[in-house]
Amino acid sequence: MVVSIIGVGLIGGSMAISLKENGFATKIIGVDASPNNIDKAFRRRLIDEDKSLEDAIAESDIIIISIPVNAMLQVLPKVLDLVTTQVVMDVGSTKFELMNHIKNHPNRKQFVGTHPMAGTEHSGPEAAIPNLFDNKTTVICDAAQSSKEAVEKVENLYNALKMRVIRMDSNAHDIHTAYVSHISHISSFALALTVLEKEKNEKAILDLASSGFSSTVRLAKSSADMWVPVFQQNRDNVLDVLDEHINSLSKFRTYLIKKDFKKIKELIEQSNEIRRILS
Amino acid sequence: MVVSIIGVGLIGGSMAISLKENGFATKIIGVDASPNNIDKAFRRRLIDEDKSLEDAIAESDIIIISIPVNAMLQVLPKVLDLVTTQVVMDVGSTKFELMNHIKNHPNRKQFVGTHPMAGTEHSGPEAAIPNLFDNKTTVICDAAQSSKEAVEKVENLYNALKMRVIRMDSNAHDIHTAYVSHISHISSFALALTVLEKEKNEKAILDLASSGFSSTVRLAKSSADMWVPVFQQNRDNVLDVLDEHINSLSKFRTYLIKKDFKKIKELIEQSNEIRRILS
Repeated sequence: MVVSIIGVGLIGGSMAISLKENGFATKIIGVDASPNNIDKAFRRRLIDEDKSLEDAIAESDIIIISIPVNAMLQVLPKVLDLVTTQVVMDVGSTKFELMNHIKNHPNRKQFVGTHPMAGTEHSGPEAAIPNLFDNKTTVICDAAQSSKEAVEKVENLYNALKMRVIRMDSNAHDIHTAYVSHISHISSFALALTVLEKEKNEKAILDLASSGFSSTVRLAKSSADMWVPVFQQNRDNVLDVLDEHINSLSKFRTYLIKKDFKKIKELIEQSNEIRRILS
Repeated sequence: MVVSIIGVGLIGGSMAISLKENGFATKIIGVDASPNNIDKAFRRRLIDEDKSLEDAIAESDIIIISIPVNAMLQVLPKVLDLVTTQVVMDVGSTKFELMNHIKNHPNRKQFVGTHPMAGTEHSGPEAAIPNLFDNKTTVICDAAQSSKEAVEKVENLYNALKMRVIRMDSNAHDIHTAYVSHISHISSFALALTVLEKEKNEKAILDLASSGFSSTVRLAKSSADMWVPVFQQNRDNVLDVLDEHINSLSKFRTYLIKKDFKKIKELIEQSNEIRRILS
């Protein structure tokens, strides 16, 4: 199977590694607006060839688009214009706006909207790693809008990546990811800002930063180019969750001001319930 | 060297493992108010013997107190009442109130206040792990208040644990840890609360939770018994940082409401500066 990857960054590049390794792809073609990324992708041996968008699509069985979700709105319709029997999939973090954007495209059925729940705080071809997707979950959105054959091909691809496939409609996807992914990033960005703004003693941060601090601010290293468009497209859901999060923090604040440590204990014990869900 | 550990939980138990393994301790005596913990500590082979507080102190060269910081205020003076030439150290997350509390004790010089910046979200003897302290930093507070010999003994102990020792006064310690540790815990507790309160679909959390979410809420599994007293003793510093953190989140909220994504990009890029400090 010939696979084209449009956008050879963390996700596209990591897919390139695994799809070649497990034999799903006989050839990986890289397409990237940045010649620098293509160069890095060749040096990391992520891709076999680079081609123009048109040539890559003509030669491929599956086209994976792994670019920021704002660029996706431009690129996906162009790709769908060019396909005949090929299957196209995206891997973006938001779905509702995209699905709406292409819902009347004549080749809509060739497209499968997906979101593999895997990543790191790094980006670019140099961030691509093996086994990124192993045993993680991926979402296929609005499967009924795609042809059965297209969905099956994409499921096979994800099975080859050792991912567990679940289905969800794009609206539910965007709500749920606001909770389990987008708010974590805002929280982490804000925490880094807080510490950087008030703790002017950088040596103290470096000396004292424990693994706890590192894990809560890890996501603050994430790329603005990727995340701003996510917040833009999922603004309403993210705002809902952010309001609730500020509200949760304000409860801690109120009880600290009142020195009501019994209530703080209750809040912590409620939050400990997350143990039930995340082992 | 005979070492007594008062409070054989995550930190005390992990010290017991490493100090025995590296030969620093010839014997580890466990003292714990909970018979259940002593039982677990024996079954995990963390301790060689259990003794009463009095007998343990009489037989020890070093006494490590690793109990919640509220209990510390009661236990430390009692321990200091009983020592003659023994060295006593604590490992608590707050220092200013404790130091003030024992400043006039006749055996003050036998005591060294410390805070090893290492831990996990788990607690109890069953959470004790080898190598917890390797290559981490530990703080010795107000070293001038302790005898030179006591500080030296404690430094040797931390060197045996492969920790890097830095010195700080207890006030500075409490301010810095509010930034690089305590606020991370509140942020994580609040994030777990947010998701648990609004995302009633627990299956969706479980299915979609990515490594990003897991790392930001990991600390929300931490014990209330340990953390409430920390927030109590470091209330003013924690409130300062929490105010600033709510302020940072409110900036994201304001710009989301205004759809000012240029400003959100600026915030994210500022927060990315944390990369410089944390590799």
